[in-house]
This record gives sequence, structure tokens and C-alpha cells, in this order.
Amino acid sequence: MTLSYNRIAGQSVERLAALSDGIFAVAMTLMVLDLRLPAAAIHGEHDLWRALWELLPRLLTYLMSFLTLGSFWVGQQTQLNHLARSDRHLSWIHLGFLFAVTLSPFSTMLLAEFMAYRASLLVYWINILLLGAILYGSWGYAIRAGLVKDDLPADVPAAICRRIVIGQALYAVGALLCIINTRWSIAFILLVQLNYAVAPRFRRAPTA
Amino acid sequence: MTLSYNRIAGQSVERLAALSDGIFAVAMTLMVLDLRLPAAAIHGEHDLWRALWELLPRLLTYLMSFLTLGSFWVGQQTQLNHLARSDRHLSWIHLGFLFAVTLSPFSTMLLAEFMAYRASLLVYWINILLLGAILYGSWGYAIRAGLVKDDLPADVPAAICRRIVIGQALYAVGALLCIINTRWSIAFILLVQLNYAVAPRFRRAPTA
Amino acid sequence: MTLSYNRIAGQSVERLAALSDGIFAVAMTLMVLDLRLPAAAIHGEHDLWRALWELLPRLLTYLMSFLTLGSFWVGQQTQLNHLARSDRHLSWIHLGFLFAVTLSPFSTMLLAEFMAYRASLLVYWINILLLGAILYGSWGYAIRAGLVKDDLPADVPAAICRRIVIGQALYAVGALLCIINTRWSIAFILLVQLNYAVAPRFRRAPTA
Amino acid sequence: MTLSYNRIAGQSVERLAALSDGIFAVAMTLMVLDLRLPAAAIHGEHDLWRALWELLPRLLTYLMSFLTLGSFWVGQQTQLNHLARSDRHLSWIHLGFLFAVTLSPFSTMLLAEFMAYRASLLVYWINILLLGAILYGSWGYAIRAGLVKDDLPADVPAAICRRIVIGQALYAVGALLCIINTRWSIAFILLVQLNYAVAPRFRRAPTA
Repeated sequence: MTLSYNRIAGQSVERLAALSDGIFAVAMTLMVLDLRLPAAAIHGEHDLWRALWELLPRLLTYLMSFLTLGSFWVGQQTQLNHLARSDRHLSWIHLGFLFAVTLSPFSTMLLAEFMAYRASLLVYWINILLLGAILYGSWGYAIRAGLVKDDLPADVPAAICRRIVIGQALYAVGALLCIINTRWSIAFILLVQLNYAVAPRFRRAPTA
Repeated sequence: MTLSYNRIAGQSVERLAALSDGIFAVAMTLMVLDLRLPAAAIHGEHDLWRALWELLPRLLTYLMSFLTLGSFWVGQQTQLNHLARSDRHLSWIHLGFLFAVTLSPFSTMLLAEFMAYRASLLVYWINILLLGAILYGSWGYAIRAGLVKDDLPADVPAAICRRIVIGQALYAVGALLCIINTRWSIAFILLVQLNYAVAPRFRRAPTA
Repeated sequence: MTLSYNRIAGQSVERLAALSDGIFAVAMTLMVLDLRLPAAAIHGEHDLWRALWELLPRLLTYLMSFLTLGSFWVGQQTQLNHLARSDRHLSWIHLGFLFAVTLSPFSTMLLAEFMAYRASLLVYWINILLLGAILYGSWGYAIRAGLVKDDLPADVPAAICRRIVIGQALYAVGALLCIINTRWSIAFILLVQLNYAVAPRFRRAPTA
Repeated sequence: MTLSYNRIAGQSVERLAALSDGIFAVAMTLMVLDLRLPAAAIHGEHDLWRALWELLPRLLTYLMSFLTLGSFWVGQQTQLNHLARSDRHLSWIHLGFLFAVTLSPFSTMLLAEFMAYRASLLVYWINILLLGAILYGSWGYAIRAGLVKDDLPADVPAAICRRIVIGQALYAVGALLCIINTRWSIAFILLVQLNYAVAPRFRRAPTA
């Protein structure tokens, strides 16, 4: 009986974390390349101020995506922190997650450029949905495959799942708002993201 | 008798792993820069949907390359996990491997842009062949030079070699299919890659 | 009573450090893409020398930003080295810091392209101010939340705060100089940065 | 007497190594963006083969720079492996080194585009010289400041210095060859780099 390569592949949580940090770092920074001024059209201080002003929506979309990636980075980290080891299946699930991460500079640029179109909002939302769904699946797999640390507190798995489901429900509501207007969608999604980043006190009080 | 620099250089497996994760991360993310819409030609929701639709082949090529890089990342990781230390020769073999990794955004873009040409398929395949051949060589060198951990199970080396040889044989079959049609080649290679990523049960059953 | 996700998220200082190193690395390197020669206009050795000469101001701005990012990298590292653990709030404060880091290639390119305009200098300075203010805030939060190591020497917190406040005061003076001329501003800021990078002896003597 | 910030800043060799790996990874991969085919001019298999053929010099320059960066990465790693800790001066010396690393995609593109001009060869060589000189200086500083590990074998410092001096002497010879012809220079430098990468047996025999 021969040893299957699949039994020995992709075991290192550290390497998975390092690749993830690298991909998040590149994806988070690449989007800044899209912040460009029309140099040829700027002939004075006044032109420059106006060009900067017109860049604001793009900066906002960038911030939005940085917040999304940030919250998924925190989410993935929280999962990986609780793993004792990885296996090849989990590695590939996270590679799928990272694929969705690398798509996010694309979906962000799309949204920034075609803010009024539902197609771009839909693509943007599908990207977020993909991130959430794969992260949810990876956690389920890690528990079923017995990869989590032995000292995992009993209520951690539920807290992780709850966070993903509530977050995705809010993003879905945001995406649905595009029936009215895509700007409403964007504003709502941005608020959700800011809420997760800032995590104001009143949300934590009842659970403390 | 003086100490040779070559005796003290490139000893750290951790640094090698960190550089590799960085290069894989950049190479995996850079390709997304190639996903661009012809902004000037889009004047309405309908145009945008069509432009997104026309981007699909490019997205597929991107996915294909992400899968390739993913499976070689897993493969390299599996080797490095079993090493006790590195030396300058092994470092340089892996630097050669990483050079082939950095070429993969180029060969992917080539394939995406000239999908119907055999030249681009050949270049793409040579890139994969290079990745596999160097990885095969690096494992052989690590064993000969006594760099592997003492507790390496006896059947691990064979499993690692088998995986590379079978994978490369399948890729070679895929490349050969371009005699009929390059699209057959691409479809076959994509299936091989998906198979390695998903690793469906029936393949693991006989070896479990 | 359910466990709040916020209690278990973002605990790893190592992951935060790794993401930071990745983002700093990309931001520090991306700016080099802006160093480009007008290839079409170069027809001989003489043209090339002149084109290289004309690139000097851009190289100087690049150096300037590399120095800024370098000193904030050292500053963030010094804080993180003294932390025993992280929490989700600290992670998000540092994500905000990293957002400001990713903006720095943009503000640098802006300054390089529109060196004579106050708007670009102001944006550049706001970027530096943001970096300093968030880093200052993150240290304050880490102390209040009890995240620092137990063996933290008593005079470290004051030294960290002093360094940020003095640095920011000097940058503010530099920014104010743009009332006279933006080139004075740039020269002054560059001198401040060089001073922090080189840290000549006479500054350390009284405190040794 | 107050504690100087400079006494507590930049102490972590691990963070320095991680930032270095990130910057090397980005710099090594960015250059591939320069490998582009003139898509508009390609109308058939034959055109594609010719375009690929014409890309060869550029690929060679890329390989050359990858080899340079690879050998400096090995060189820096060898130093850092022997350090017990870092301090702020050493951190800044290595930041200077990393600045030279980020310039290397620029000097490489310059050389690839203006292969026949001495100006581009000179810039390329100055870049290599800078890398070597700073690395030499950083080692000297680390020894003087007592940052090396206690168990450092007595002959390691000399081996590290010798390697840098001999390497730089060979690169200088290569640069001087541009008096005859820049192509001689490039060929010679490439041979030196390949020699350091491959390190054929006959060079190691007398020191084994």
C-alpha cells in the first residue's frame, strides 16, 4: 500500500498564514495604483484641487475595499489562530478564499468606474459573498476534520459562524438596495463595513 | 585553509519559505491587473454586461494559473516542511524555481491573449514543466545532501516524486493535445488542475 | 450569554506584523514603477544622460517617501515588539495605519508630479500626519487595554510618545514652510527624514 | 535623564528579515511586468514566434537581475542568520540596502531598453555597487556594535567580507569592459552571476 501524497501535503498553518498575509498585502496595496490624476489637464493650483476633489469617490471605494479585505483578514486570522494544523483540503479551501481576495482589486475598480450600474455592484457583492461563503465552509471543514486546537472554547465555533452569517446578511441587504439605487447600496455597505471596523461600544455591551 | 562562503550561505529554511510566500503572493495577485474592461466603449448597463462576459476567458486563464501556482505552492511547502535545514545549493535551486514562478504571470497573459496559437500554449507548458522539473530536482538534491529531517517516514520521498511525475505526465498529455486544437489542451490542463485542487474521494480511496 | 466574536478576533501580533511587513514592502517598491524614461525621445547617449538627470527630482521624492515609510516601519515595529498580544480594536487601529501606508505611493507620486503646488504638499503632509496620529493612538490604546508586555521598562511609553510628537512637530513646520515656497518645505522635510534615518551622534550624546 | 527612542527602536531581526523578504519578493516579480508583447502587431503564429524571439534579450536581462537579487538575498540572509539582535542603526543600514533593492527593477528596465548605451550600464553597475557596499558596511557595523551571536565561528566574518569584495571586483571588471562594448560587459556580468548561482565544484574543492 503506497502513501498518498495527499496525506502529507499542505500541513503547515504557518505557511498558509504567510501566503495569506502576502496576498492580502498585495491586494490591499494594488488598488492605490488606480488613484491617478489626469496630469495633462492640470495647469494650476485650482485645477489640482478640483482633480483631487473628483478623486474622492474613487478614494471612498478604495477605503470600502480596504475595510472589506481588512475584516476578512481579521476573520481568516481568527480561524487560523484556532487551528492546530492544516491538511491539503483546508489549504485548497483557503487558496480558493485567497483567489477571491485577489479578485477584489478588480471588483473594486469595476465599482469605482461604473458606480451607477447594477452589474458592477452585483459583481462586487458576489465577490464579498464568495469570501464569506468560503470562509464559512473552511471553518466547517476544519471542525469536521479535527484540525482545531484541543483547547478550543466550546462557544468559539458558534461565534465565528454567527459573525459570518450576520455580516453576509447585511451585505445582501446592501446589495438588494440597488433595486432602488446603486448609491444607496454603496452607502449601506460602507456603513456595515465601518461598523465592523469601529465596533462601537453599544454593540458589545449585551455580550460582554 | 580558509572557510568557504558557500559553507555558511543560504542555511535558513524559514527565510526561503518567507521569500517563496512573498513571490507566490505577488505572482498570484499581479495577474489580476490584466482583468481590465474597455472603459471607453461602455455606455450603458448592457455594454457592461457584455464586456464582463467577454472577460470570462481571461478570468478562466487567471483561475487556471492560480490553480497551477497553488498546486506548486503546496508542493514546495510539502518539501520544505520535511527539511531540517537548507544550504546554498538548495537555496539556489529554489531561487530557480521561484524564477519560474515569476514567469507565470507572463506565460498566463500570453495564453490569455493568444489562446488559439500553439506558441503561447507551448510557452505556458514549458513554464509548468520548468516548475515541475526544478521541484523534482530540489527534492533529489535535498535527500542526497542529507538536508531532510531525521524522522522522515520512509515512504514520503516516493510519494513526493510520484506526485510530480504523474502531474507532469498529465500536463504533457494536455500540451500534446494542441496538435488537435489548443482549446482541447487548455480544457484538459484545466481539468487536471481542478482535479488536483479538489482531490475527489475516489482518487484517495485505494491509498487510504 | 453568547460569546462575542469581537472577543476572539484579531489576537495575533505575529499576523499583524506579517501583514504590515507585506504592505510596507509593496508600498515601498511600487513607487519605483513611477521612475520611467521617455523611451521614444531618446536617440543617443546624450539624450539618455539628460533623461536620467531630469529623473533626479522624482528619485529624490522616492527617497523621501522611502525614508518616511522606513521611519514609520521602525516606529510601528518598536510598538509591536513591546506587545504581549493584540485584540480586534488594536488590529483595526493598525489596519487604519496600514491604509495610510498604502496611500503613501499616491501622495508621493502627487508630490513628484506637482512639486510647485501647495495642494500636493498638503496632501503629502496630511498623509504623514495621519500615519503619526494613528501610531500615537495605537500606542495609547495598547497601554489602556493592557496589551503591552509585563516587563515593559517604565520609561519606554514616554520615549515612544515623545518621538512621535517631536517628529510630527517638525513635519508640521516643514509643511508650514510652503507659505514661503513648496521647495523649502520639501527640503526641510527631507532633512528631517535624513536626520531620523542617520541619527547623528550629537543627538544621542545627552541621552546616553 | 530620559530614555532615548533610539535605544529601543528597530531591535527585531525577524521583522527586518520579513520586510526584506517582502521587498525582495516584490522587486523580483515586478520586473516580469516588463515582459510584454506588441499585441497589435501579431496576426499569426509566425508573428508570435518572432515577437517571442525578440523578447529574448529582455528575458535575459530579467534573468540577470533575478540572479543579482538572488545572490544579494542569500548574502543578506547569511548576515542576518548570524545576528543575535538588531538595533536602530543596523535597521536603517538595511533599509538603505532595501532601497537599493527596490531600485533594481528600474536599473534593469533601463539596461534592457538601452542595452547599447554606457549610461544605462553605468547606472546598472552603480546599483550593484551600492548593494555590495551597504551590505559590506552593515556587516562591519554589526560586528563593531556587538550584534552578532556569541557562537559565531571565528572565520565567518572574513568569509563574508571576502565574498563581497571578490564579487564586487568582478562586477567592476565587467563594468569596465563597457569601454570596449556594453555587450561584453553584460555577458561578463551574466557569467559572474551564473557562476555565483551555480557555484561549480572546482571552485569549492580547494576550500573543502
